[in-house]
Amino acid sequence: MIIIPSDLEHRDRYRLAISAVLPRPIAWVSSMDKAAKLNLAPFSYFTVAASDPLTLLFCPQVSARTGRQKDTFYNVQAVPEFAINLVNEELAQAMNQTAALLPPERSEFEWAGVTPAPSETISVPRVKEAPVSFECKLRQIVTVNDRPGGGAVVFGEVHCIHLQDELYVDGQVQLGAFKPVGRLSGSGYVRVTDVFEMQRPGTP
Amino acid sequence: MIIIPSDLEHRDRYRLAISAVLPRPIAWVSSMDKAAKLNLAPFSYFTVAASDPLTLLFCPQVSARTGRQKDTFYNVQAVPEFAINLVNEELAQAMNQTAALLPPERSEFEWAGVTPAPSETISVPRVKEAPVSFECKLRQIVTVNDRPGGGAVVFGEVHCIHLQDELYVDGQVQLGAFKPVGRLSGSGYVRVTDVFEMQRPGTP
Repeated sequence: MIIIPSDLEHRDRYRLAISAVLPRPIAWVSSMDKAAKLNLAPFSYFTVAASDPLTLLFCPQVSARTGRQKDTFYNVQAVPEFAINLVNEELAQAMNQTAALLPPERSEFEWAGVTPAPSETISVPRVKEAPVSFECKLRQIVTVNDRPGGGAVVFGEVHCIHLQDELYVDGQVQLGAFKPVGRLSGSGYVRVTDVFEMQRPGTP
Repeated sequence: MIIIPSDLEHRDRYRLAISAVLPRPIAWVSSMDKAAKLNLAPFSYFTVAASDPLTLLFCPQVSARTGRQKDTFYNVQAVPEFAINLVNEELAQAMNQTAALLPPERSEFEWAGVTPAPSETISVPRVKEAPVSFECKLRQIVTVNDRPGGGAVVFGEVHCIHLQDELYVDGQVQLGAFKPVGRLSGSGYVRVTDVFEMQRPGTP
C-alpha cells in the first residue's frame, strides 16, 4: 500500500506517524517562564543528538486544534534552561497526569504529586523523584513549521546529570533497576522487559 | 549521584546516554552516493520532528575512533534523498548485519539478504521486505559538532509512505501485526510486547 502523506487529514497523518515510529523514549521536561512559574510536560519525540558535547533534543508540536505551541516551547525561549527528567514504571502515572491541560495558575508538579528539587547548573528545578535528570542549557531551536501540525526541535546541552545511586553501575544505567517506560500510539505505553541481544557483526 | 558529562571520557558519556535514553525506535536508512552505490545502515537516534509537513529526523554520529561520519551522512549530502525503513522482529537480524563496517565494494543489501525496491518519489531504493518505508527528501542538516563524538541531525520530509497492507487498519499501524523492535544499549534490543494503557487526563 502506498500513502502520500499530504493527501491525509492532519489527524490521520499524525496517527500514522506515532503508530509507526516507536517505541519512543519519554522526556519529562521541567521549564519555567520569566515569572519563575514552573511547567512540567512529557514529550516523546525525543532523542540524543550528540555525545560531545552531550546534547539531547525534543520536538514540541503546534496543536492542530488550537494553533498554539506547548508552554514548554515558550518557556525555553524566555528562560533558556530546562531539565529533561526520565520516567520509570513508578512515575508513569504522575507523568501521564502532566499531559493534562491545566489552567495557568495550577502547577503540574503539585497536580502530579512530584517535588521540584534544585538543580546544580540551571535555575529550573528538576523532578526529585525522577531516576535520571539531565540539566540542559538551550543550544538552538529549529522550527520545521510554526503553523498547526508543525513543530520545532529544541536542542539542549547537558551540563549536569542526576542519577539515583543504585542505577549507575560500571558506567551504564542498569535497565533492571531503571525500569523505563516507552511511548506508543494512542494511550499505549511499553515496559522494557521483553529484551534480547544481537552481537554487532565484525567486518566481513 | 551527580555527574558532570564533560568530566567523563567520551566512551562513558556515550554509554551513559544510550543506557538512559531508551527504548529508541530504529531508522534503517537506505541512501546512495553520486555513483548510485547503495548504503543501508541502522540509526537509533531517530524521531518525528513534525506532522505537517511530515518530517522525520535521525542523528548520525562522528566516530570517536576514526573521526569520520557515517557513509549515510556523506551520501545524503551528495544525493539529498533517502528512505527510512522500519524494522520488525523478522528483519532484526538483517538490520543488525548492516551495522557491520563493510569494505566499499560490498553492498549492505546483499550482505544482509534484503532487496532494494524502487521508490515512487525519490531515486534511492527502499527495503522491499520492510513493513513500513518512508521516502524522504533532505530538508536540512544541523551539525552539533563535527569532531569525534559529535553528531548531526538530518531532517527528511516524507513524500511517500509504503506500508504492508495488513498493517494499516483504521488510520493506524497495528502494533500486533507490525511487531517492531526497539534499541537499548550495548547489544540490547526490546520487543514491544509488555504494553499497558493510561488514558490522557482531562482538564481538571
